[in-house]
Amino acid sequence: MNDKIRTFTKPWALCVGSDRVSTMLRAEYWERFETLKAVMPVQYIRCHGLLCDELGVVRRRERNGADVILYNFTYLDQAFDAMRAHGVRPYVEWGFMPTDLASGDQTIFWWKGNVTPPKDWNEWANLVVALTQHWIDRYGAEEVRQWPFEVWNEPNLTNFWKDADQDAYFHMYEVTVTAIKSVDPLIKVGGPAICGGQDHWIDDFLAFVLKRRLPLDIFTRHLYTGEPPKKQTEDIFYQALAEPRKPIDELREVRARIDGNGFAAVPLHITEFNTSYNPVCPVHDTPYNAAYLASLLAEAGEHADLMSFWTFSDLFEEQDVPRALFHGGFGMIGRHGILKPTYHAFAFFSRMGSEIVHQDERCLATRRADGVICAVAWNPCREVGASDDRRVASVSIPWKGSSALALRVRVNETLGNPWEAWRAMGRPLNPSPAQIEFLKIAAAPGAEQAVIEPENGTLALRVTLERNEITLIELTPFKDESAGYPGLEDSLIDGYADEPVRRPSFL
Amino acid sequence: MNDKIRTFTKPWALCVGSDRVSTMLRAEYWERFETLKAVMPVQYIRCHGLLCDELGVVRRRERNGADVILYNFTYLDQAFDAMRAHGVRPYVEWGFMPTDLASGDQTIFWWKGNVTPPKDWNEWANLVVALTQHWIDRYGAEEVRQWPFEVWNEPNLTNFWKDADQDAYFHMYEVTVTAIKSVDPLIKVGGPAICGGQDHWIDDFLAFVLKRRLPLDIFTRHLYTGEPPKKQTEDIFYQALAEPRKPIDELREVRARIDGNGFAAVPLHITEFNTSYNPVCPVHDTPYNAAYLASLLAEAGEHADLMSFWTFSDLFEEQDVPRALFHGGFGMIGRHGILKPTYHAFAFFSRMGSEIVHQDERCLATRRADGVICAVAWNPCREVGASDDRRVASVSIPWKGSSALALRVRVNETLGNPWEAWRAMGRPLNPSPAQIEFLKIAAAPGAEQAVIEPENGTLALRVTLERNEITLIELTPFKDESAGYPGLEDSLIDGYADEPVRRPSFL
Amino acid sequence: MNDKIRTFTKPWALCVGSDRVSTMLRAEYWERFETLKAVMPVQYIRCHGLLCDELGVVRRRERNGADVILYNFTYLDQAFDAMRAHGVRPYVEWGFMPTDLASGDQTIFWWKGNVTPPKDWNEWANLVVALTQHWIDRYGAEEVRQWPFEVWNEPNLTNFWKDADQDAYFHMYEVTVTAIKSVDPLIKVGGPAICGGQDHWIDDFLAFVLKRRLPLDIFTRHLYTGEPPKKQTEDIFYQALAEPRKPIDELREVRARIDGNGFAAVPLHITEFNTSYNPVCPVHDTPYNAAYLASLLAEAGEHADLMSFWTFSDLFEEQDVPRALFHGGFGMIGRHGILKPTYHAFAFFSRMGSEIVHQDERCLATRRADGVICAVAWNPCREVGASDDRRVASVSIPWKGSSALALRVRVNETLGNPWEAWRAMGRPLNPSPAQIEFLKIAAAPGAEQAVIEPENGTLALRVTLERNEITLIELTPFKDESAGYPGLEDSLIDGYADEPVRRPSFL
Amino acid sequence: MNDKIRTFTKPWALCVGSDRVSTMLRAEYWERFETLKAVMPVQYIRCHGLLCDELGVVRRRERNGADVILYNFTYLDQAFDAMRAHGVRPYVEWGFMPTDLASGDQTIFWWKGNVTPPKDWNEWANLVVALTQHWIDRYGAEEVRQWPFEVWNEPNLTNFWKDADQDAYFHMYEVTVTAIKSVDPLIKVGGPAICGGQDHWIDDFLAFVLKRRLPLDIFTRHLYTGEPPKKQTEDIFYQALAEPRKPIDELREVRARIDGNGFAAVPLHITEFNTSYNPVCPVHDTPYNAAYLASLLAEAGEHADLMSFWTFSDLFEEQDVPRALFHGGFGMIGRHGILKPTYHAFAFFSRMGSEIVHQDERCLATRRADGVICAVAWNPCREVGASDDRRVASVSIPWKGSSALALRVRVNETLGNPWEAWRAMGRPLNPSPAQIEFLKIAAAPGAEQAVIEPENGTLALRVTLERNEITLIELTPFKDESAGYPGLEDSLIDGYADEPVRRPSFL
Repeated sequence: MNDKIRTFTKPWALCVGSDRVSTMLRAEYWERFETLKAVMPVQYIRCHGLLCDELGVVRRRERNGADVILYNFTYLDQAFDAMRAHGVRPYVEWGFMPTDLASGDQTIFWWKGNVTPPKDWNEWANLVVALTQHWIDRYGAEEVRQWPFEVWNEPNLTNFWKDADQDAYFHMYEVTVTAIKSVDPLIKVGGPAICGGQDHWIDDFLAFVLKRRLPLDIFTRHLYTGEPPKKQTEDIFYQALAEPRKPIDELREVRARIDGNGFAAVPLHITEFNTSYNPVCPVHDTPYNAAYLASLLAEAGEHADLMSFWTFSDLFEEQDVPRALFHGGFGMIGRHGILKPTYHAFAFFSRMGSEIVHQDERCLATRRADGVICAVAWNPCREVGASDDRRVASVSIPWKGSSALALRVRVNETLGNPWEAWRAMGRPLNPSPAQIEFLKIAAAPGAEQAVIEPENGTLALRVTLERNEITLIELTPFKDESAGYPGLEDSLIDGYADEPVRRPSFL
Repeated sequence: MNDKIRTFTKPWALCVGSDRVSTMLRAEYWERFETLKAVMPVQYIRCHGLLCDELGVVRRRERNGADVILYNFTYLDQAFDAMRAHGVRPYVEWGFMPTDLASGDQTIFWWKGNVTPPKDWNEWANLVVALTQHWIDRYGAEEVRQWPFEVWNEPNLTNFWKDADQDAYFHMYEVTVTAIKSVDPLIKVGGPAICGGQDHWIDDFLAFVLKRRLPLDIFTRHLYTGEPPKKQTEDIFYQALAEPRKPIDELREVRARIDGNGFAAVPLHITEFNTSYNPVCPVHDTPYNAAYLASLLAEAGEHADLMSFWTFSDLFEEQDVPRALFHGGFGMIGRHGILKPTYHAFAFFSRMGSEIVHQDERCLATRRADGVICAVAWNPCREVGASDDRRVASVSIPWKGSSALALRVRVNETLGNPWEAWRAMGRPLNPSPAQIEFLKIAAAPGAEQAVIEPENGTLALRVTLERNEITLIELTPFKDESAGYPGLEDSLIDGYADEPVRRPSFL
Repeated sequence: MNDKIRTFTKPWALCVGSDRVSTMLRAEYWERFETLKAVMPVQYIRCHGLLCDELGVVRRRERNGADVILYNFTYLDQAFDAMRAHGVRPYVEWGFMPTDLASGDQTIFWWKGNVTPPKDWNEWANLVVALTQHWIDRYGAEEVRQWPFEVWNEPNLTNFWKDADQDAYFHMYEVTVTAIKSVDPLIKVGGPAICGGQDHWIDDFLAFVLKRRLPLDIFTRHLYTGEPPKKQTEDIFYQALAEPRKPIDELREVRARIDGNGFAAVPLHITEFNTSYNPVCPVHDTPYNAAYLASLLAEAGEHADLMSFWTFSDLFEEQDVPRALFHGGFGMIGRHGILKPTYHAFAFFSRMGSEIVHQDERCLATRRADGVICAVAWNPCREVGASDDRRVASVSIPWKGSSALALRVRVNETLGNPWEAWRAMGRPLNPSPAQIEFLKIAAAPGAEQAVIEPENGTLALRVTLERNEITLIELTPFKDESAGYPGLEDSLIDGYADEPVRRPSFL
Repeated sequence: MNDKIRTFTKPWALCVGSDRVSTMLRAEYWERFETLKAVMPVQYIRCHGLLCDELGVVRRRERNGADVILYNFTYLDQAFDAMRAHGVRPYVEWGFMPTDLASGDQTIFWWKGNVTPPKDWNEWANLVVALTQHWIDRYGAEEVRQWPFEVWNEPNLTNFWKDADQDAYFHMYEVTVTAIKSVDPLIKVGGPAICGGQDHWIDDFLAFVLKRRLPLDIFTRHLYTGEPPKKQTEDIFYQALAEPRKPIDELREVRARIDGNGFAAVPLHITEFNTSYNPVCPVHDTPYNAAYLASLLAEAGEHADLMSFWTFSDLFEEQDVPRALFHGGFGMIGRHGILKPTYHAFAFFSRMGSEIVHQDERCLATRRADGVICAVAWNPCREVGASDDRRVASVSIPWKGSSALALRVRVNETLGNPWEAWRAMGRPLNPSPAQIEFLKIAAAPGAEQAVIEPENGTLALRVTLERNEITLIELTPFKDESAGYPGLEDSLIDGYADEPVRRPSFL
């Protein structure tokens, strides 16, 4: 870790991913989003599946004997208006191919995104121009210039781009960026939106951009930490995860590779990230997933400018309609709005300030502008029964003044873990309202507190973390306001004659 | 306890009390009410302080040289429209005296309710007629006939009725009931709204009603269990409580006394009840208060037809504006919407069915129409360190079929007790938003579960209750739906190789 | 018209139709529904397209080498929970065929409902049993017994049922009703859900039911008044309408035919009705549509027990995603929530009371339980420039007491007609927010008023109706409350010295 | 008018006034505020009556034999949290005097604001320091520095400040500003909050500030245009208004006077303005009020930096609880949320851009950043029957390109005038829900439109304004999108054979 870095940034708080744009028409989508926004000031949603047939954007028709291409922005406008109403902006991903423009019929996912190039590149360019212009007409150029545009999604995979044809993608990039800039050169455009594992695409893409003298405002890539699956069915995918530090190292290497190609000034956006890249991988539902991601949230800002977690909710249909309350979905927030442990990981780190006052492998503490010390500690335990099952985080915080009030919120295997409660209930696929209500109570994190005395201008915290725990601690000056209520004498309360305060300290 | 009673009713779920009607104009009022309605199907709110000056209902003015009495229903309509919008009806309490009609200037409370008789009984009768007619015009006679009307409040106390003058009250009753019935004889009218301690008023009032051949549709009385205070200041009132069975006995005696006067057919409404009768008594904030009230909630239906808890929220100003988050207020719901233990007591009992399957001094179990067994157990501990600090509830439930899933929700000194967390934080008078958020997490009850095997058609539950615990248990047939998700193999989840389900059973 | 009928009923206020069930997941769906509920106390929504693939209800899979049929109620539960949350119940239409159960691949509409019989009737019966049981488990038998069940949709059309095969449909009815009743015989089941034009199906179906001694709790049929189209493209369908009395006559004949088969005790539900049966027919957007439907709303209750307007909103995708704000959609409520004239027709008639005080071909007046006289008059003008372009409605209302206040709300070609404003704006396909705002102002109906003096116990109203007007008039006793504000002297208001009240009377 | 001024600013859109702070606890308050915010991006609410007893801020008590002053911020925090939740900031007005700190018992208004100086200036300073510090603790210094602070209200009137004692006020200013700056010198403080009519206070106050070398960040004054009343009772106040240009001249003179004292760099805030200064003056409810204010809204930005309209809603109790729906209240928005004409005046001008393209005495046209031309024209008619009853506004707008679409919204005596409808209904003091619904329809403005052809790069608008009309016109390029819907042929719509578009142009 670089000792010199003393400023904390939150690239992962800027943007989130979700299922394709058509799901923005659902009530559930925005209920979940508001739940997220309450704890994380998201600015962008990555708009995936923008051009899928179900949105009706493009139709080829015969009218009066002629072949006509009709555009229909009814639902796109509805989705984009909804983003505006909910105070968030689009991160526009151009894709997939409207069937009526496509050169082939290869599709991906249950919802059948067409992944073939256009059969007529002019028709594609016309669509890009028309839609970009429509947005400027409707929302104003000042607004649209704040929306990052990204060309396609994971063209280095044959599933997402026919034959993973690099030349075809580079041509796609050229046609698309040229079309966009022809409407407004100040719109920011990025690519190549590749996933990991084939970083020679970085060199190839940047060489192409240089050679063709094309604009490139943003470099985009994805980041998952899944290793080969242990078992895989259509319903469930059991995937092991790499070491928690692995994604951080990968981020650093990607950034260095971009820089090495002479693009040090171009920001790096990770337009998708998570642990497993599979939407039916049960690890996503666990506290381990949350504790595992913590290191990345703590350090990603050193290397990336924006990161978009894939995805904020379990409204997600790549593998058919979700068949059970918990099914290994990507989401921070589960079905029925039940908060999964990973939600709290993002919530905790979102409370951080920018001034780092302590940082080690499993703990980060910062000071906020309002003076509050905000610390998060985590304890991911991959091996069951290993010696690290329970761990003590030791943190020293510089502290002026007298005693400190420490408020702690905990998520681990027994606190804030509705997945475990659901399993114990017999895994009801579609729980009753009463069961859902119970699971929401079971999903509540733990709340503990302590009053800590500083010694020599330092607060020494020693906090025990349980298996797969992620814990938040906020420190403020302790102030006993009892005097504001003259005459207090707790021992006179019926039933409370013994001790003024029973609540144990977590220390 | 009467062994023959096998049907459970919930008179306390029908009606709740609150601060005076003018507080219905507040946003906070209805936020809290919706929180209550989410767990208890309240039908009525007792409308206290209906005629206070701040609502502007009555003004005596000189106009063109004449003495004129002007009525102004602007705010009353706003309050009553709000009740309608929130799906609840008024339980109309006629009082206090508008200053411009009053015979004296004695007032009660910070908000100065005038407690003197009218100086001109005709003016009072005119007001009663005008307002009753106005309601019929605005809401329809069918609707108004569903609103119980009650004449005055606690006339047997000198604070609430000048000199506690019985004759004057009886005259007030006669004038008022006559005025109401002159508008619509089908409106239900009740009295005498006395508090406990002077039950000779029951005999006196009923004798008067008989003698004067007056209508009496409802008998109303209050019920508190506070004993003489241990210490009393303007800010805090430390009051001991009677034995938990005391109010049940009192209910029975009141009912018997009414019957003894020949009014067995008249329903009994307890238009106020709680433990302490004082709004700055800290016991109201404790788990002890909740555990204490449980017996009354379990048995009140044997004696009373309607009971109105005083009050559903800590928006309450009899003793000035509340000066701290927790201040001993009557409310089930504290300031900032923080749920107090007593809220859960009402929520738990509201889930009960009507068929009793087990009942003892500290546990009630019922079967609901949907077949679910719903049980509540409680353990109020007045003496600290006494042997009953922890208690085991043993319940046998008839059970057809195989294993049962038991979902348990717990409130005690460490679960669902935000008051304790607040005390440990140094009792912040006006907590910061972050502190309020923390207290809401600390206010979450515990959620535990178990799968129970029946033996010989019986489920034997043995549940340990902590000090001042009140616990809810719901039993449904256990169903393992794992098969609906073919291929499940939990030990393949990264980090979860050991055991399929870790979550401990509460048994 | 039958002079003896003096009671007004509103079968069309009980139920409404909408696009297929999957659209209930959309935020727009419930925004529109709340707009409707504000003026009409709808109790049921007809659940069309219940079993379409996009809801994921049925999947045939190979699991461990076996052919398995998996049910997934995730989205159905979400839709049905949403209905519950919005205070409305399902009117269950069983269909269309899940692809994985179907015998063929014939589909209907953009959203591809499969209209072929099951390839294995047992698999269909199993699905019906499983889903019915699931609903009983989740919502309780008491609740589900209040949901009408209907078997399929328009089997007499080849588009909706392969070959319009009558025998196959009758078998479908038998299998389905038997499956449902095997779960709970108290659930109400109906058919044959035919559209008009082939009423021999009525005789055939009832004969079949009799012969097979099958239960039939409800007879269902559809009712449209469109005549052959004048012009038809994929985008637009220009359809003439029959005379406004035609559907009323048709209703009477259908009822008589059912009775004639010995089923006089079985209620008649019109599970779809509107003018044109096509979702891109511009007449739906016009004031003429509203004025045309008025006769039917006024008289339908004489013949039918429930009628479900098809549809309450323009969220409707049978012919692709709507391509313009106004596109001839079925809805009472247009895109962006803009109210179409037909919405007001339903709103006006929903205010009616049950006692008829006047009825002629183009006017109905009733007395409500609250004493208010509520009248609607209408003036549909099919022929342009004909003599009936402007019409005077003359109504005599019995009236006790003195003068009456008449409040009038008007919709016609220039009032409450946003379609006309939109056309004049150049038909913007996707209007800007500012244009939408303007159209909402343009959509406001007219409000006029008058004070009317009775003569000889009668109020004589003579009201002029403009072309295609539908007008609501409510009469209450006029009461001048100026005296409640002593000292009023309007001529002293700066700028208003001339006349106390300028507003003209509509008389 | 100064020809050189070509930039339009909206000082009156920054801030609004309302009844005292305690009314922020009401649900009605925020419903109305959201109605306002939908059309005007208000940033501040002037917090009047901040320290009134009903908020419980200050209590003098004897505790343990000592005289203690207790602060209670429970309700102030609730009000300020509500402002934050609704996206608006406080404009803090320090006053009136808490009874327990006051030197006398003189009060103002029904709600009894004490208007006497403190009996102990240290106690006052302590309160100012404590409350300012509390806000910084709760909301952060960065936030509080954005709240303007103003010392007292209209000290030049004996009603608002005992004896209108200038020396006492100057001392109040000195003590208060010194106390505030001692907590944080970056908080902005202003005074002297005088009303018009005694502008020698300007010179006196500025001389005092200079002499004592006190900070003064803002100069504050009020602005009303009422002349002596024609008739005055407790219930109604008939007040004539000065010429519409009078307040503009007054603004200019005040600014010049401040500059002349050497304070040209100090911004001028008009912390209250309206026509009549009386809350029961019927002119406030009229279209004349709206048309009258238009000139001021058009030109105020030339002289003032912030203006706060007094008040945004008729939730207002200075003269007792409002006794009727319309009662001459200050509000833009009436009771039950009924929009008064003045609301539209603010809404119309809020749509303006900053580039002025036309300006005359009764019309202003601007170009917005989005290119839209936005014009408002007005026609206040004080004299009844005068020749100016109807007026034509002629405006020439530079226009590139082809035809323009003009959308017009109108308010005058017959459009958008619910007051007139209410009068014609017999002035119901407390209208029924049905009457309120009708009045909301009657309150809708008119919507008209036209397509205009430019000549020689100019659009020539000639718009007829009715008596007391204020009209909004927005111009955008006209675009006929009918081609996007191939096959349109309106004459085929049943009933619409005659003309493609019937809607008349307003030109």
